[in-house]
Amino acid sequence: MKTLIVHAHPEPKSLNSSLKDLAVSTLEAAGHEVRVSDLYAMNWNPVVNAADYGSAASSPLHVAADSGRAFETGTLTEDVRAEQEKLLWADTIIFQFPLWWYTMPAILKGWVDRVFTYRFAYGVGEHNDTQYGERYGEGTLAGKKALLSVTVGGPEAHYAARGINGPIDDLLFPFQHGILYYPGVEVLPPFVVYSTDRITVEDYPDVAKAWENRLLTLNSTDPIPFRRQNFGDYEIPSLHLKDGLEPAGRTGFGLHLHR
Amino acid sequence: MKTLIVHAHPEPKSLNSSLKDLAVSTLEAAGHEVRVSDLYAMNWNPVVNAADYGSAASSPLHVAADSGRAFETGTLTEDVRAEQEKLLWADTIIFQFPLWWYTMPAILKGWVDRVFTYRFAYGVGEHNDTQYGERYGEGTLAGKKALLSVTVGGPEAHYAARGINGPIDDLLFPFQHGILYYPGVEVLPPFVVYSTDRITVEDYPDVAKAWENRLLTLNSTDPIPFRRQNFGDYEIPSLHLKDGLEPAGRTGFGLHLHR
Repeated sequence: MKTLIVHAHPEPKSLNSSLKDLAVSTLEAAGHEVRVSDLYAMNWNPVVNAADYGSAASSPLHVAADSGRAFETGTLTEDVRAEQEKLLWADTIIFQFPLWWYTMPAILKGWVDRVFTYRFAYGVGEHNDTQYGERYGEGTLAGKKALLSVTVGGPEAHYAARGINGPIDDLLFPFQHGILYYPGVEVLPPFVVYSTDRITVEDYPDVAKAWENRLLTLNSTDPIPFRRQNFGDYEIPSLHLKDGLEPAGRTGFGLHLHR
Repeated sequence: MKTLIVHAHPEPKSLNSSLKDLAVSTLEAAGHEVRVSDLYAMNWNPVVNAADYGSAASSPLHVAADSGRAFETGTLTEDVRAEQEKLLWADTIIFQFPLWWYTMPAILKGWVDRVFTYRFAYGVGEHNDTQYGERYGEGTLAGKKALLSVTVGGPEAHYAARGINGPIDDLLFPFQHGILYYPGVEVLPPFVVYSTDRITVEDYPDVAKAWENRLLTLNSTDPIPFRRQNFGDYEIPSLHLKDGLEPAGRTGFGLHLHR
């Protein structure tokens, strides 16, 4: 197994960094190859701008088109090309981050914004009567798996089906489905640690044990059953889910799971 | 009316920047005061780190606690304090941004991450048997209104109730409810322009007219009816929505609207 860990926390002694370190040691001890993109340690630039695209940048700037031309002509910046190369190398991608304001930290969002360029992560594949590009289950990263490892300050109850923050699966849907499944990555159920505002040194061994168990069973874990776009479940080109496919009462993001 | 516009697009000649400029001119012509935080023009730093908290930063860093102590002792960086001051000054906040990978650009997420510190935007109010802090309808920014003005590359159908990307209201929920309503801001329905990948100069006057209409009717527009946390709809401290309050069949994020 070749695993890329994308890590986004400013403090090397944090719970997040401990979980990242544990992933490295656990996977390496199991004989896997591991590479780490530690975004804070790399001083990762999270801001998309014309400098990303070199001579492919137009004036005025068109982010999608220019990023695609830069990808195709090899004029993306070295830092972005290195991350794309790591993604192509990996068969498994782990994202380790704290949930800040119900989504990922800015430094990680900016990794997505800059690395997931047009023609690499989107704008891939033909559009015709039976397919709308290669997206949602197909694409450049098809065949790979990903897993979000997330720390959450508040208690699990607040992220339950009736919890005030909204269900955790819905909060993570734009990342898991919109960012990862879109270019073809199968997404395993997330590893979420709650109540980290109150976690103590005494609590850590149980968290570590649970994380090790997840890491050592990645290959036998079923992915989230997102529906593939181009295989009959959706009208083309509206990309509406066809009537009657979902279990009774299913609405919202949950429509896009096939069971 | 005192309006703060937080703008997040790298190209001054973009649709986003045009809509921002139109908001400034329209509101000023109507006699309102307007301030703009143009994050790209300001070269806004979106990355939370220890330098934000000055002498209040602990080692190891604790983002929540340290940001709260820095807020209370006045040791937050000047750029963050300036944004907090603008938020306290404004009665209306407009966010102008493109939807990138189903959420805001990293530079805007990093404005939230750095400006919405502990004790300013969260960690406010008492916890007891009848309230769980001042959150979701109460808090530092109570009495203010906000509006998201969002450009979306893809077509509206893909963001409909059965659309593959998920409903736009659900994609915006973590921002509108989790970030804005949390510290007390009432959120007006978003202004969303779709299919901007294909928009032409000929299309712009209709978009501009629709945006002007929204800007000139802000005061008569009803906010999204999010449920207040501490007024009987939720169990405390689980913050589960009490059984039976929602319309039949309502699930997910939609539970947290009272109609």
